[in-house]
Amino acid sequence: MAKEFVKDITSMEEDFAQWYTDVVKKADLVDYSSVRGSMIIRPYGYALWENVRDALDKRIKETGHQNVYMPLFIPESLLQKEKDHIEGFAPEVAWVTHGGSEELTERLVVRPTSEVLFCEHYKNIIHSYRDLPKLYNQWANVVRWEKTTRPFLRTLEFLWQEGHTAHATDEDAHEETTRMLDVYAEICEKVLAIPVVKGQKTEKEKFAGAKFTYTIESLMHDGKALQTATSHHLGDGFAKSFGIQYTDKEGKLQYVHQTSWGFTTRVIGALIMVHGDNRGLVIPPKAAPTQVMIVPIAQHKEGVLDYAYGLKGELSKLARVDIDASDKKPGWKFNEYEMKGIPLRLEVGPKDIENKQVVLVRRDTAEKIVVATDQLHETIEQLLEDIQQNLYDKALQLREEKTKSVTNLESFKEKLEAEGGFIKSMWCGDQACEDRIKEETGATSRCIPFEQEELTTTCVCCDKGAKQMVYWAKAY
Amino acid sequence: MAKEFVKDITSMEEDFAQWYTDVVKKADLVDYSSVRGSMIIRPYGYALWENVRDALDKRIKETGHQNVYMPLFIPESLLQKEKDHIEGFAPEVAWVTHGGSEELTERLVVRPTSEVLFCEHYKNIIHSYRDLPKLYNQWANVVRWEKTTRPFLRTLEFLWQEGHTAHATDEDAHEETTRMLDVYAEICEKVLAIPVVKGQKTEKEKFAGAKFTYTIESLMHDGKALQTATSHHLGDGFAKSFGIQYTDKEGKLQYVHQTSWGFTTRVIGALIMVHGDNRGLVIPPKAAPTQVMIVPIAQHKEGVLDYAYGLKGELSKLARVDIDASDKKPGWKFNEYEMKGIPLRLEVGPKDIENKQVVLVRRDTAEKIVVATDQLHETIEQLLEDIQQNLYDKALQLREEKTKSVTNLESFKEKLEAEGGFIKSMWCGDQACEDRIKEETGATSRCIPFEQEELTTTCVCCDKGAKQMVYWAKAY
Repeated sequence: MAKEFVKDITSMEEDFAQWYTDVVKKADLVDYSSVRGSMIIRPYGYALWENVRDALDKRIKETGHQNVYMPLFIPESLLQKEKDHIEGFAPEVAWVTHGGSEELTERLVVRPTSEVLFCEHYKNIIHSYRDLPKLYNQWANVVRWEKTTRPFLRTLEFLWQEGHTAHATDEDAHEETTRMLDVYAEICEKVLAIPVVKGQKTEKEKFAGAKFTYTIESLMHDGKALQTATSHHLGDGFAKSFGIQYTDKEGKLQYVHQTSWGFTTRVIGALIMVHGDNRGLVIPPKAAPTQVMIVPIAQHKEGVLDYAYGLKGELSKLARVDIDASDKKPGWKFNEYEMKGIPLRLEVGPKDIENKQVVLVRRDTAEKIVVATDQLHETIEQLLEDIQQNLYDKALQLREEKTKSVTNLESFKEKLEAEGGFIKSMWCGDQACEDRIKEETGATSRCIPFEQEELTTTCVCCDKGAKQMVYWAKAY
Repeated sequence: MAKEFVKDITSMEEDFAQWYTDVVKKADLVDYSSVRGSMIIRPYGYALWENVRDALDKRIKETGHQNVYMPLFIPESLLQKEKDHIEGFAPEVAWVTHGGSEELTERLVVRPTSEVLFCEHYKNIIHSYRDLPKLYNQWANVVRWEKTTRPFLRTLEFLWQEGHTAHATDEDAHEETTRMLDVYAEICEKVLAIPVVKGQKTEKEKFAGAKFTYTIESLMHDGKALQTATSHHLGDGFAKSFGIQYTDKEGKLQYVHQTSWGFTTRVIGALIMVHGDNRGLVIPPKAAPTQVMIVPIAQHKEGVLDYAYGLKGELSKLARVDIDASDKKPGWKFNEYEMKGIPLRLEVGPKDIENKQVVLVRRDTAEKIVVATDQLHETIEQLLEDIQQNLYDKALQLREEKTKSVTNLESFKEKLEAEGGFIKSMWCGDQACEDRIKEETGATSRCIPFEQEELTTTCVCCDKGAKQMVYWAKAY
């Protein structure tokens, strides 16, 4: 059955949420099923996730971490060992109560995150300072019982990696927390071309059970923010609850200091909303499952298909190249691969072959470039680099345009209402002000950025002295 | 805390089950947790799984399949759509009954396998013959509520890939079933050095809902068999239950024909029990996370460590090489890496450096080889190949020694009791005989091998004419 014409998507300006839903469906990233709130990640979506995952897994291993696999289920009593942690997660977990036809004597939680499992394991395997640090990571599915869900952004089940480490000192754990935030930022900026703001979460917004949480925050095309990844310094709270101790060089018993950090399929949602446009998805070359799509023109004419397949073989040495030699019309193919956000389209027909040239079309700018075949390799390599950089630059420019400094609550509301975006302001550090800002503006604190500025000396909300500059925004 | 001396493992001959448990623990493959029946796959075990997974994933992609991801949960009503399937799986599934604090209106099953999810999706996306074949695969965790569990061999949760494909004709599906069994056999034989018998399961032993099941069966060191992977021809039964139809070239509605096939972490158990010995694990080079472990001798002496690290850098171009420069004694290290089954140990000390040589020790034969440094590359490459081949040859020889033909039930029992192994016999095809053989001997039918022989003309159990030769064995 022919697919609907790709231009059938709602425009961003008309209805951003509907545009998003249209794109994830029409670019074949996901499908729905009868499982409420869960998504089917289709081949194209999964290939995209595999690229991100592999790039991140490489960096995780390069920074000395090892992959492990922990159980899916957590006994209720184990989850309850860390008080703040269970309070944070209990309302949003799925409970297994029966195995086969028998009722369980103890209920099991489907993991929403695996801190407690790692803690139990660490208690088993950490004894001496020689056993530290322990730098573990796992790739897994987790479940959080969300009421309202949207593909990639908020789903009942999602895929992620969760790093869990144990260190001899608080400083070591702090360093690790920073290191992994930097790795996340690097993947976002270099692979996904998504600029991020690095900072610390407020007490209110930090991870349940953490000493503090670092975060990277990105701005979507509609002016809303998205928390792209987080890295938590867990301090020794979990270690004390679970009794994870080691003997130091002086023979004294010490508690370990821990971190955890996670990066999820949510980032695909960010990628869509940062780069996409009204013709569909736009994928940065480094993340793209297919970087160059060859569309033969007048492919029924002698020699065209052979030539096009020859190009594919040739170009596959330098890029991820695919060809669509189906009997669909070139115009259909153009729309399809624009919808799928493939960075470069290569058109080649009888005249091009005669003239020893091909036509390249950039997805990001729609620019058409006629290239002599003997210049093709260099041109493609250069264009892929240019597209990657251009997407990053455009996203950064948009973020900068949509980041406003304010000094009082009135202009806070005005600027936020006008075009969303990040609002920068000074804050006294008091949760009452944070709550009031949320109530009055709908914006939450996204982070206390590492790069601080002193905009004024008083809090944007009350008269008290300001402690820090904060990024606020309406957020996904 | 120092690890117990590695020789502390029970010998195979004394107690094979205890030997297995000792090896998985002492080689640091797994750890236990408070989650009944589940295992923690530790870094070394997971790296081994990653190697197997990556080799298989590559072959799955090369044979034209695409990876997707389906939900973890299956609504009860969806699982019930295929009658045989739900009957087969209902007694062994985990039930989610609550989300947060609310009781669900419909219970969810934690997937024991995902046929029904793929069927629902296929119904959505398959319309025309142009949409076929659909060749999907997923890497996932699944849960089966097992009463008695053992690491890798039978666990409440395990990791696997499950392929699910839809085809226009029964023949296409049949071809696919064979193709993927061949891929599994190739991974087992070429990567894991595990010889397999390919064949078809009897009606009694086939997958719940399948038309027929193909299997590869391997023989463990203790003479018990292990089903290493299976590939199912699902026929059009699921298609009819779920209404998965396509319009053929003549415009007529047809049901699709499906397959499914799976390969699990169980194979790690097979690897342990096929190659391991009383010094621990033995890993074939192609699957080994570390192929060569460098142990510096008298490493405190000037130049030794520099030289050893130099070798590591150099050799890393041709193999997966690691070095243990910790302050533990060489003897401790020798035992440790023997326990971990690392194919080659490379010892290098001051005298070796002076004599421009190193010492290589094979894990499989314990042979010590003094090699001139200018011959090192070729020697290591050759030895890794030799070890791979030797492990396969030894396993094949053992299997052949332990495969016995019988013509009556008396000698069936005698031979099985004497040393286990595969029993080959003729069978009438009647389930009554299959049941009786199981009852009287404890052996189950492993497969009707593709390579048939005519041992006699009558069934080993009854007087009726024989239809096929069957492999029987006590099995994991």
